[in-house]
Amino acid sequence: MLVDGKPFRSIWLKEDFIQIIDQRFLPHEFVVEDLKTIEDITIAIKDMHVRGAPLIGVSAAYGIYLACRNSSETDFEEYIINSAIRIKETRPTAIDLIWAIDKQLTAIKNAKTREEKISIALSTANKICEDSVNQCMAIGSHGLRIIEEISKNKNGETVNILTHCNAGWFATVDYGTATAPIYAAKEKGIKLHVWVDETRPRNQGFLTAWELSNMNIPHTIIADNTGGHLMQKGMVDLVIVGSDRTTLNGDVTNKIGTYLKALAAKDNNIPFYAALPTSTIDWKIKDPGKIPIEERDSDEVDFVKGVDNKGKVIRIRLTPKNSSSVNYAFDVTPSRLVTGLITEKGICKPDKESIMELFK
Amino acid sequence: MLVDGKPFRSIWLKEDFIQIIDQRFLPHEFVVEDLKTIEDITIAIKDMHVRGAPLIGVSAAYGIYLACRNSSETDFEEYIINSAIRIKETRPTAIDLIWAIDKQLTAIKNAKTREEKISIALSTANKICEDSVNQCMAIGSHGLRIIEEISKNKNGETVNILTHCNAGWFATVDYGTATAPIYAAKEKGIKLHVWVDETRPRNQGFLTAWELSNMNIPHTIIADNTGGHLMQKGMVDLVIVGSDRTTLNGDVTNKIGTYLKALAAKDNNIPFYAALPTSTIDWKIKDPGKIPIEERDSDEVDFVKGVDNKGKVIRIRLTPKNSSSVNYAFDVTPSRLVTGLITEKGICKPDKESIMELFK
Repeated sequence: MLVDGKPFRSIWLKEDFIQIIDQRFLPHEFVVEDLKTIEDITIAIKDMHVRGAPLIGVSAAYGIYLACRNSSETDFEEYIINSAIRIKETRPTAIDLIWAIDKQLTAIKNAKTREEKISIALSTANKICEDSVNQCMAIGSHGLRIIEEISKNKNGETVNILTHCNAGWFATVDYGTATAPIYAAKEKGIKLHVWVDETRPRNQGFLTAWELSNMNIPHTIIADNTGGHLMQKGMVDLVIVGSDRTTLNGDVTNKIGTYLKALAAKDNNIPFYAALPTSTIDWKIKDPGKIPIEERDSDEVDFVKGVDNKGKVIRIRLTPKNSSSVNYAFDVTPSRLVTGLITEKGICKPDKESIMELFK
Repeated sequence: MLVDGKPFRSIWLKEDFIQIIDQRFLPHEFVVEDLKTIEDITIAIKDMHVRGAPLIGVSAAYGIYLACRNSSETDFEEYIINSAIRIKETRPTAIDLIWAIDKQLTAIKNAKTREEKISIALSTANKICEDSVNQCMAIGSHGLRIIEEISKNKNGETVNILTHCNAGWFATVDYGTATAPIYAAKEKGIKLHVWVDETRPRNQGFLTAWELSNMNIPHTIIADNTGGHLMQKGMVDLVIVGSDRTTLNGDVTNKIGTYLKALAAKDNNIPFYAALPTSTIDWKIKDPGKIPIEERDSDEVDFVKGVDNKGKVIRIRLTPKNSSSVNYAFDVTPSRLVTGLITEKGICKPDKESIMELFK
């Protein structure tokens, strides 16, 4: 996707190390960061220099590649296992992380030499990365059909889409999940406008706004409280969000607050879709109440970053100093509130049978 | 209520003018402001130095008193009418404003001299002010019964109450509406804990947190996205909010985002109450879709105030500069999502018959 008209991805290989767009500085500053060690990768994931389930997965895969490079001949096995454990512990909710690490470990298992393992780890990471790009493109072309139909039913009038958090290209390698159908629709010349939830506490909605602005797509930022009112007033035609972990029964774990928007969509008969690569499907967990919900540092609620009147990026405390806060990062939207899942394999209903059908 | 252990109200008469706590500076600074003219009052209401439906009503009533004082003998009638119009135009959604002004105009109508009108305007404003305090106390004692019952059902374990925005004593003259039952329960020694929605964009939740902190009531600040998850996890026993305008059919107009919390409460079988003086009842509007929803300056979404690392209060821009935002201040929660209304006249179901019953 474009940044100031120039094509970018969110992560890429540079010589023998990794570069990312450090998302902590956006939307105010555009910073590229070098990641050269397993420490760099774990910090980048944990402190959300990179974020979004698919991008976390790709970053983790490159992390194993860096671990292979940085290990010595003698401690290789132990170093890789420890690195895998360390990366897995960074973020508990997104399942792509676990999936990508396990894929790497399986891939390098049978290689004989350290050199061979490094080479396989790199090609596996590259493949996971390219696969993610292709999956997002496929999600885009499947999701496009939904937008096209709404546009047709509205006789070509503007389609208003609400999205929560950033399931854009910054949450993936390119195109995004929830945004991929939007970019595809834009390409097709469909008139659209996006309502962007700011998504407190970390305001990832500003990443979405920044993305859309760079891609020239009309959009409006709203406080997270606003979506219900807009839906009541007929100002939303479609909700598309991402998913960090999807149960086989179609329950969608996504950024905290998604559940509230899904309730409002249901209450106003507005289609509510989650867009996700099938790698976010958790084949094991049946009870969505058992999905681990990450609790992050309450500082993320208490402090916020922005630009002062001199254009300098600074951090301020919002909350009164004698009050404490809590910061749950995700919630689970039960499948009964989900219209459908937009995956790289096609669109399906949020139930086991329909999900299984995708894999036939 | 207490500020640093010292009793305060949100508005009071000082000699022949008005003083308020300028709420724009809270929770970071405690500033008392003098209001001496109709200009001062309209600015204070419009720019939210004072806010909350009941306090807006009381401020408006004192505004008419100040207008009477500042008028001359010759232009009296015209000056008062113009002042009334100016105050009414400050905030479109809260109906207490209109109610208080009309009450003042009726009260002074038959007085003969300017001196007499000033005197009546003052005593009417004082009465509206004292009535508000008494109403809030009555709301507290009625609402207490709900909390007592939950506490009993939980065998005295902590009752977790979620509230949105500030319907505390800062939104009234004293005690608050949604907070009055909480303060009454605290007095009774009931164990409780309050989840405080920060309530973007203006973060009035921080006023609530600051109030609760000064009254020594355990509480936790949460992003507005969080309430649904807490309800799913059984961490909320009761929701109490305020109301800026209540239809005769029991629909509750309150701070934007209230509707989303009401949906989540319904979805999780959690009682959802609105606490309000009956002056917020709109006897005319039948279709809640016709309630005017204030659209405020989008700067309130784009900018936020807080304390920098040197303890200085500053304002920063949050949103990317090429994106626009929108700022609807209220939404309407349909009566089907409301368990009951806690008024100064008692608790009732959110329907016309039950509301009318209160006035018999």
